[in-house]
Amino acid sequence: MASAIGRASLKTWLISRHVDSAAKSLTSYIIHDTQFRKSSSGSYSDEGKSTSSWTLGRLTVAGGVAAGFGLLYGWSREHEGVQAATVEEGVFVKGLPNYSLDEVSKHSTESSAWMTYKRGVYDVTEFIKHHPGGKTIMLGVGGAADPFWHLYAVHKEPHVLKLLSQYRIGNLEEDDVEHQTKNMDDPYANEPKRHPALKPTSQKPFNAEPPAALLVANFHTPNELFYVRNHLPVPEVDEKDYSLTLEGEGVKTLTLTLDELKKKFPKYKLSAAIQCAGNRRSELSKFEGLDLDATGSPYGASVPAERALDPKSEVLLAYEMNGEPLSRDHGFPVRVIIPGVVGARSVKWLSNIILSKEESTSHWQQNDYKGFCPSVDWDTVDFKSAPAIQELPVMSLICEPGNGWRVKAKDGKIAVKGYAWSGGGRKIVRVDVTGDQGKTWHVAKLQQEDKKHGRHWAWTLWTVEIPVDPKGKQTEIWAKAVDSSYNTQPESSAHIWNLRGVLSNAYHKVIVNLIQ
Amino acid sequence: MASAIGRASLKTWLISRHVDSAAKSLTSYIIHDTQFRKSSSGSYSDEGKSTSSWTLGRLTVAGGVAAGFGLLYGWSREHEGVQAATVEEGVFVKGLPNYSLDEVSKHSTESSAWMTYKRGVYDVTEFIKHHPGGKTIMLGVGGAADPFWHLYAVHKEPHVLKLLSQYRIGNLEEDDVEHQTKNMDDPYANEPKRHPALKPTSQKPFNAEPPAALLVANFHTPNELFYVRNHLPVPEVDEKDYSLTLEGEGVKTLTLTLDELKKKFPKYKLSAAIQCAGNRRSELSKFEGLDLDATGSPYGASVPAERALDPKSEVLLAYEMNGEPLSRDHGFPVRVIIPGVVGARSVKWLSNIILSKEESTSHWQQNDYKGFCPSVDWDTVDFKSAPAIQELPVMSLICEPGNGWRVKAKDGKIAVKGYAWSGGGRKIVRVDVTGDQGKTWHVAKLQQEDKKHGRHWAWTLWTVEIPVDPKGKQTEIWAKAVDSSYNTQPESSAHIWNLRGVLSNAYHKVIVNLIQ
Repeated sequence: MASAIGRASLKTWLISRHVDSAAKSLTSYIIHDTQFRKSSSGSYSDEGKSTSSWTLGRLTVAGGVAAGFGLLYGWSREHEGVQAATVEEGVFVKGLPNYSLDEVSKHSTESSAWMTYKRGVYDVTEFIKHHPGGKTIMLGVGGAADPFWHLYAVHKEPHVLKLLSQYRIGNLEEDDVEHQTKNMDDPYANEPKRHPALKPTSQKPFNAEPPAALLVANFHTPNELFYVRNHLPVPEVDEKDYSLTLEGEGVKTLTLTLDELKKKFPKYKLSAAIQCAGNRRSELSKFEGLDLDATGSPYGASVPAERALDPKSEVLLAYEMNGEPLSRDHGFPVRVIIPGVVGARSVKWLSNIILSKEESTSHWQQNDYKGFCPSVDWDTVDFKSAPAIQELPVMSLICEPGNGWRVKAKDGKIAVKGYAWSGGGRKIVRVDVTGDQGKTWHVAKLQQEDKKHGRHWAWTLWTVEIPVDPKGKQTEIWAKAVDSSYNTQPESSAHIWNLRGVLSNAYHKVIVNLIQ
Repeated sequence: MASAIGRASLKTWLISRHVDSAAKSLTSYIIHDTQFRKSSSGSYSDEGKSTSSWTLGRLTVAGGVAAGFGLLYGWSREHEGVQAATVEEGVFVKGLPNYSLDEVSKHSTESSAWMTYKRGVYDVTEFIKHHPGGKTIMLGVGGAADPFWHLYAVHKEPHVLKLLSQYRIGNLEEDDVEHQTKNMDDPYANEPKRHPALKPTSQKPFNAEPPAALLVANFHTPNELFYVRNHLPVPEVDEKDYSLTLEGEGVKTLTLTLDELKKKFPKYKLSAAIQCAGNRRSELSKFEGLDLDATGSPYGASVPAERALDPKSEVLLAYEMNGEPLSRDHGFPVRVIIPGVVGARSVKWLSNIILSKEESTSHWQQNDYKGFCPSVDWDTVDFKSAPAIQELPVMSLICEPGNGWRVKAKDGKIAVKGYAWSGGGRKIVRVDVTGDQGKTWHVAKLQQEDKKHGRHWAWTLWTVEIPVDPKGKQTEIWAKAVDSSYNTQPESSAHIWNLRGVLSNAYHKVIVNLIQ
């Protein structure tokens, strides 16, 4: 249960400005992003620079990082298979030419792109088109990759270092190394303490989820066990210094302190499940390569103004979660909650809301969180060809028993538990579960909020007992959900694979061992 | 393009009444159905009886029959495989006991259910639970099935007559036969003329669709080729006598003539695709038995008030279609258009709109147009357990080439055309097509309306060229669509089969022969 400043009030503000202005239509107003200005790390390279705009009426909220709230999440396991290696990249290599930083800085274009890492100088011109993060690599060329990699530690994986070594052309002059790495305090030095039940898949930035079986223990997830999905270090914000700016085309700029936010607007509560677009990514078995990008830019996101301004959308500026102030990991002091929409738009550590005619140019809005045809790869992808993910498709997960569990049948049956959810407030109307590859399906009992209107933001927990072969050693369990538009899940990931590893909503399948 | 009385005006009427009343919330208002009172046939057995109510704020519109408008449709082929037979049922059978109509009328309960057909007397008690239309069979017990079967000629199929013969217990006394069948003028005597390109799957009531290849010839389907889905005979309405009644709890009753409808409200146009829930039913291969029910009741349907009263829903009272007055088959003089929702709610020959707290009790609202788990059959189905279909899931169809066509590749490729659509105004964002079982997918070029907001009521036409094996004799083509919520289609019908044969939205697949 999130307590928050009423979205009605936010909308009143926007709408009253709209009415004051000469605009003909609400959709000509948009909110776009700017970066969070109160980072503790000071590592934001373009602090103070507004990272603007889009096409068409959209609401963009910005600050730090989008992440979870309601409960759902399952971060990628794609790095688990990587073996520890002994690649020591960036050391001085005898016999290679020396280059000064000044010389490196002359190669900062797509036709000649050099960069340094520790003592190494690299010509990455040929690599630009292969970079998983696209042209964001250009932010680093002509200088040192070190500060970016410090922020996105995933680059320090052995396979990335090995890849880099192919482009080595020289050594950086020794005096220049110090210049490149000074003032490089660890931006992750002030991360909050996390609950040990959160299993990290990435430490810097921090990404973690609780074991699935914990998720079905309660309808509302305890704050400490709520999944964390960060793209950058967690900012340290002093609430006395905090202010939120609302601005945009045709509207008068408004700045509110945390106290004003709490006192001037009615408090509103709702239950909502938040799901990352990358939930169940590990099941997209073709997935490979890096999935985090080194832009150095602040996080920003956009949502259509039509959704943000519709009272039925119940958009919140949240300062509490389950009755407690937001924790640092979840966006202290204020985050946005856009229920029914991918978690990436529910921006944490909110600093600005900007009404704009164009969509955010942020990397996360334009070149991430989009779906593509299974045959599109990094050589052929055109990010402009796909819309940014807003509502997510219907999905379900088996939480208990987990894959590989040993289970004893009772009266020939085993109990299965899980969750299901659909975007856009669509209610889960049925969950079917099978233990025999779909020869027979069993309808699960649903636990969900009793909403009379069509805005089911919270998830649905479900339980079912399915018969198993009394002599069997194993059984494979499948689950699929149906939402109120009668959309259902694809049977397998074979034809929904996509290069960003998002939208993994095939039937969930687990294999359990039966104890006789 | 449908020209119509502005939905805004309709809503104004409803909302202003709402504001006048003491009601607290719009969702406490509902419209429910009544039957159309101006049938030419006079065959409606319960003429004048209001068939009411529901749970929760919903808008119910009523009149005759729901059917198509925008374009999409593909009626079942399930009767095609039935061989012509020589079953002559209902004739006098020597050696069986004689029963009077008076005696038959004493057996009109579920514990003893008799009925007559021509000279035959049948004890159908055991059959009640197997009747595809459920307990609607009770309308006919204790008397003659003849008038119901006259209305629903599908019962006169050889396999139905053969089934009936199993329950034969006697002969109806000769004098009573005349009594049973007098006044049985053919209720279908005054049906309109139809275009020969419409391929009927049922004549009484009339159900027909054009060949799929005609559908992709134009973005808007010509009226004459627009699919027809009727549940009853087409009423003959004199527009001078026509009136529409708007009534309900807490609102003042309003009656409007056709002229008043046209003059008092602004004209509003929109493009919308209308799709029957049973589109592509023939692909649900487990489907069997009758799919039409003999209730004798007028058609009625409900939609949630929240949708009907939301200006964004663009609900229309339509009196024109593609710039011409509605034809009799499409609802002359007035029908409802509820874009983004299953065709069954876009009621034709509209007579009443009733705001009500409860959902329509009509057979078509309660016991049809609902989806169930694949393992639910007629013995286990609980119609109350599933919500009435409103929005439909994402779907696509390959229109050209058709199944079995002979096609010559050009430069190693063949052209494929089709349509795609999703319920709730969700835009089609991508259509993927494969000619090699999904090893490689090709993204189709889309033709769609350029709507800035999220209300894509019209369908999307698509074209793509796919490579084929230069030495191959056949190729199997699959298509799948993705909508703006990134929902996609299930791969096959295996796990979406349901006893009503609705919601058939698996990948569409056709096999074509390649000419060398």
